[in-house]
Amino acid sequence: MSITTPQGFVASGLASGIKASGAKDLALLATEDAKPVPTAATFTTNLAAAAPVQVSRAHLAETGGWATGVLVSSGNANAATGKRGRNDAEEMCRLTAEGLGVEGNQILVCSTGLIGIPLPMDPIRSGIPALVAVRAPSEQAAEDAATGILTTDSGTKEVLVAGSGFTVAGMAKGAGMISPNMATMLAFLTTDAGLEPSTLADLLRIAVRDSFNSMTIDGCTSTNDTVILMASGRAGTADPNMVVDAVTEACTGLANQMVADAEGASKIFNVRVTGARSDGEAHQAARKVADSMLVKCSLNGEDPYWGRVASDLGSAGVDFDIDRLTIAYGGVAVCEGGVAVDYDRSAVGDHMAGGLIDIHCQLGLADGDGVVMGVDLGYGYIDENRTTS
Amino acid sequence: MSITTPQGFVASGLASGIKASGAKDLALLATEDAKPVPTAATFTTNLAAAAPVQVSRAHLAETGGWATGVLVSSGNANAATGKRGRNDAEEMCRLTAEGLGVEGNQILVCSTGLIGIPLPMDPIRSGIPALVAVRAPSEQAAEDAATGILTTDSGTKEVLVAGSGFTVAGMAKGAGMISPNMATMLAFLTTDAGLEPSTLADLLRIAVRDSFNSMTIDGCTSTNDTVILMASGRAGTADPNMVVDAVTEACTGLANQMVADAEGASKIFNVRVTGARSDGEAHQAARKVADSMLVKCSLNGEDPYWGRVASDLGSAGVDFDIDRLTIAYGGVAVCEGGVAVDYDRSAVGDHMAGGLIDIHCQLGLADGDGVVMGVDLGYGYIDENRTTS
Repeated sequence: MSITTPQGFVASGLASGIKASGAKDLALLATEDAKPVPTAATFTTNLAAAAPVQVSRAHLAETGGWATGVLVSSGNANAATGKRGRNDAEEMCRLTAEGLGVEGNQILVCSTGLIGIPLPMDPIRSGIPALVAVRAPSEQAAEDAATGILTTDSGTKEVLVAGSGFTVAGMAKGAGMISPNMATMLAFLTTDAGLEPSTLADLLRIAVRDSFNSMTIDGCTSTNDTVILMASGRAGTADPNMVVDAVTEACTGLANQMVADAEGASKIFNVRVTGARSDGEAHQAARKVADSMLVKCSLNGEDPYWGRVASDLGSAGVDFDIDRLTIAYGGVAVCEGGVAVDYDRSAVGDHMAGGLIDIHCQLGLADGDGVVMGVDLGYGYIDENRTTS
Repeated sequence: MSITTPQGFVASGLASGIKASGAKDLALLATEDAKPVPTAATFTTNLAAAAPVQVSRAHLAETGGWATGVLVSSGNANAATGKRGRNDAEEMCRLTAEGLGVEGNQILVCSTGLIGIPLPMDPIRSGIPALVAVRAPSEQAAEDAATGILTTDSGTKEVLVAGSGFTVAGMAKGAGMISPNMATMLAFLTTDAGLEPSTLADLLRIAVRDSFNSMTIDGCTSTNDTVILMASGRAGTADPNMVVDAVTEACTGLANQMVADAEGASKIFNVRVTGARSDGEAHQAARKVADSMLVKCSLNGEDPYWGRVASDLGSAGVDFDIDRLTIAYGGVAVCEGGVAVDYDRSAVGDHMAGGLIDIHCQLGLADGDGVVMGVDLGYGYIDENRTTS
């Protein structure tokens, strides 16, 4: 499986010298015939958005949702680099476009790595022509691209979903705790389904909401987060409802791989909130619990201290009545009607000792439903994040 | 200095047996003549507010801002305890009121400790009459009260501010990292200044905003947080503008003692945001930075990684233009116009190695100004919070 499995795409990756380690640090994803295809993207909401985010957003607006390729560099985020950073990002697009024989605004660009340091442009300037030259639809070329986007991830993150008459593939890097010094979540998806740019944008928004935006490592929103979906149309027109399901499945697969790769974490947990006033309120409440430093610490200590969960729900900014609250760990209720109940301590203890902890909060108000996935907080997170050196 | 230094107040504290350790766990603050005086309070905004918060809020509403005394218990928060918890809190007020010869709604009640466990009422029922009996205006009685409200604080927290013709005194316990298992911030203030209940309520709101609400340990809002201010009027009518300054100074003094007592922390830091669109936006941005797990980790590692600060400002939900941003550590600018600048690394290194780190973010947009005090995130926080045992 690879990003080039859907028909109509080529990829490549190589080491240009941005990373002192000599690891791959440039990647290209492009259409096979170097013609633009419908392309959608979601970008970080951070107002300190990095230069490549600003440039890619502008290019996609200029073309009305079409692109021929995506250039990715890793090792330096090109964030907080001012006008020079924007010029560098534009130059990266122009060099890639020249190699492919297209206009510069048909190229999107992403970078990931340390913030506040200007990009080393010399290796990038010599690397891009070589990267364009070796592009191919092969598994090996796709693997090189999936490697070139990584920072300190323990391995590549790839996914393939077979739709009905089309396929969706993806590759990703990140996020947060893997190496929050380079805390960016990047994901690239391809499909051979045929869809209009506006439809593609709508369905990507839905898929991202139900996957990447339902996970949290530390509540920090990166300056560089980007998800891009390109649709070659080689498999012909597809039902958008089928495509949205496949894209959501692909995004969820990548999101799960990111959380599972969180080096500093020892446990993953799901917070499911039901019975909220709306799905939006359920999601908001679940995120408050999943981002809670106190809850994350309790899970590191395998302590089912539900009082902290109740306290976070009460301060989540959603409708809440503690007298209707039920909280369960691993399906075992520890609080009902807002008060402690007797429960099977050995069953809950066994569940807490595992690697995946399930917390279910039933608010008892209406039928709003939401899930957010998080990770515990222990020494590992501190070790990963104390210094950049 | 003590809570009974302003004229017209008595206090007491004793060990009733709530705490297995045998430490003091009940405290009383009351007017000397057992007559009600103007009293203001601010309570947690958490919708999972504990039973004593619900009861105190109701009593203060019934009396229109008058009270004769405050009963405090420590070791158990009486939170997430349902109807039984509310009955227990009401009974605590009734028993105290009987001792003082007043109506039950003239008494406010606060509790602090573990969430989700019913109060042990037997020791409380025998303890309250004894507590009322030994009340006195003495320094020793006030010290007993200041001790009786603590959980795992390393010592009492007290403050005295001399106004022009009046005094303001306070005692507090908490918060967060000191022992987040019992994560409640409680503060009690007395003054002999004469003020109407509505004026008192207004000025307490201002003082709390500029003191307790400008510090953060871990971004969690407790179920029990309460600040109460009683004004005996014994020193005669006072200028509210002078009283608000004195009360703010007293609250700030107590807040500083709380942050300084954060056992799990190794460093305190101030985030000052200037140049924001408004004071409110400045405060919101400062709080986002002070609550950031990544920034807190950097400070633990003494790393002036300003990129994380910029990223948090950009996602704080306030107006922001990175091209106008300046960030300084200990007065030394490390970022100007949103990009890295050369700086004196040895001066910044010395500043980061100290116990109090100063981060100044100038947004360059308007003249909104705000400061939030926080603490670093290191092994200590994990150790304090992994388990309740």
